[in-house]
Amino acid sequence: MQRIKVAQFGLGPIGIESIKLAAEKDWIEVVGGIDIDPAKVGKSLGELSNGHHRLAEVQVYKTFEELAAKAKPHVVLHTAGSKADVAINQIKPMAQQGVSVVSSCEELLVPKFRAPKLAEELDAICKKHDARVLGTGVNPGFVMDVLPVCMTGVSRTVEHIYCERVVNASTRRQPLQKKIGSGLDPDEMRRLFKEGKAGHAGFLESLALVGHAMNWTFADTYELFEPMIAPYDIKTRFFDVKKGQCCGIHQQVVGKVDGVQRVHMDLKMYLDARDPHDAVKITGDPPLEVRVNGGVAGDMATVASLINAIPRVLKAPPGVLMMTDIAVPAWR
Amino acid sequence: MQRIKVAQFGLGPIGIESIKLAAEKDWIEVVGGIDIDPAKVGKSLGELSNGHHRLAEVQVYKTFEELAAKAKPHVVLHTAGSKADVAINQIKPMAQQGVSVVSSCEELLVPKFRAPKLAEELDAICKKHDARVLGTGVNPGFVMDVLPVCMTGVSRTVEHIYCERVVNASTRRQPLQKKIGSGLDPDEMRRLFKEGKAGHAGFLESLALVGHAMNWTFADTYELFEPMIAPYDIKTRFFDVKKGQCCGIHQQVVGKVDGVQRVHMDLKMYLDARDPHDAVKITGDPPLEVRVNGGVAGDMATVASLINAIPRVLKAPPGVLMMTDIAVPAWR
Repeated sequence: MQRIKVAQFGLGPIGIESIKLAAEKDWIEVVGGIDIDPAKVGKSLGELSNGHHRLAEVQVYKTFEELAAKAKPHVVLHTAGSKADVAINQIKPMAQQGVSVVSSCEELLVPKFRAPKLAEELDAICKKHDARVLGTGVNPGFVMDVLPVCMTGVSRTVEHIYCERVVNASTRRQPLQKKIGSGLDPDEMRRLFKEGKAGHAGFLESLALVGHAMNWTFADTYELFEPMIAPYDIKTRFFDVKKGQCCGIHQQVVGKVDGVQRVHMDLKMYLDARDPHDAVKITGDPPLEVRVNGGVAGDMATVASLINAIPRVLKAPPGVLMMTDIAVPAWR
Repeated sequence: MQRIKVAQFGLGPIGIESIKLAAEKDWIEVVGGIDIDPAKVGKSLGELSNGHHRLAEVQVYKTFEELAAKAKPHVVLHTAGSKADVAINQIKPMAQQGVSVVSSCEELLVPKFRAPKLAEELDAICKKHDARVLGTGVNPGFVMDVLPVCMTGVSRTVEHIYCERVVNASTRRQPLQKKIGSGLDPDEMRRLFKEGKAGHAGFLESLALVGHAMNWTFADTYELFEPMIAPYDIKTRFFDVKKGQCCGIHQQVVGKVDGVQRVHMDLKMYLDARDPHDAVKITGDPPLEVRVNGGVAGDMATVASLINAIPRVLKAPPGVLMMTDIAVPAWR
């Protein structure tokens, strides 16, 4: 068996977790890391990841070009931000060398949604150089898009899709508790969301993916955001939230076709949330009600979804891919 | 948009439901039916299906060859029995003409499991003539194989997969109530299972598909069967079952790798069953617990899964396909 050569672009916490998991797979050979941080460049992935022995000799480079000159990968794992345009510009040189990319960039779930022109350019590069690019993750990438779409595979008719996700942020890491605005003034949090500096990224992309799969062209889409307000003082390992302060987010998206609501997604991530879960309710024939007790945990599972996607991405035809273009998700 | 030409092979109750659903899709053109029953040959699908206006002019032929000479389809929907060898021999002439097939034949979920030599032959024919063959359905084909596999797409590790399905046969049609042995002597039902004449077909195929997707080679597999015994008299629209008689089936399969149990599937279909549901429990990181309340209804959804698979099958590379080879299930 020839092992798949994999490199990691972006060595923040998620990138480190990603490459550590990759190092555990006997079908992967980790060939390098890429990060702009001068404190990381030149070190080994083993040093940065507190590490797996298979990462001890593997180098961190400043650019993809430097890495490719030394150790060209088959696939780059890209974990460097949420914005489609930024990500595509980072990915282009990889695709030009025929290197495929699996990215956690939320907006790459449906690249043409935010960056239609860049996505088209990247698609042409991929097809010319036999490369594939996929954006995936847990959310977006699975629980509120791929899972409901998958369930409709047994549907005679689908009238409406409702998804719900409740995350108990108290059990999660500091970055998530910060991201949901723990301890901020609720008005401050509303302002940050309006400025695109807070809130769950990629929610409209989940809606777009479901719409794409169902062949629904949404004339109208809506995104609603409200901070969750602490009903009492909440103390976590990382934050001290007073009654009345922000303790999380409540975000919704809705898609309508010809004036009729077809999709509604409801996401709550907040401290001290009871009964965390993911749920899908499909109105149609047959009606379907699915529930994931406890929900699918975020970051650690996102990293898994990237690694697991690699073999399916490499089997797909070249181009900019979406999760509904490649084979059914599966652990590898 | 060019419509996909579809014909129906096998015009029993499931075949009729299948072609009626196909007739409702604006992306399908129904071009014919095939059945050996002389009472059906020469009639129109509209007459047989009590019919959809789009089936009124569509003819039933005795053989695939007769149909192909008049109205060659792109895809044949095959609903004619559970046996892989029989099905493959029926499908071969279709593949030889470059016609793709989506089949409800339970053993075609993993054709190489029962009929490795025939499956290989069919695969070669498909590749030579640009045809695709897929076996699918609700069970096997979705709830106890594709759904658990799909969930593991977010798994860092998978140690064990448990699936459970409870069907309340009281709410189902006469053929299902008959199939589960309603009113038979329990020993008679045990004998029928041993002779391969009773029980849920394709259960070991579900196990094989999960094993294939997880890269687990089962050294040992087990299939257990027990009739469910009526604890009191049960009266349905179709059967009168006395206390102590068979009122359903309880069937299990288990797969072991290197002596360790990796998969356990538990299926109960019986009269007066409480809390019908499908459930998946994955032991691993993260642990996952999924429940489909009420379960996915069988026959009607099976027909949907056939039709919904058509566009994904046509996009896949030629060959004998499995559900894990083609794109994520989705309603079309």
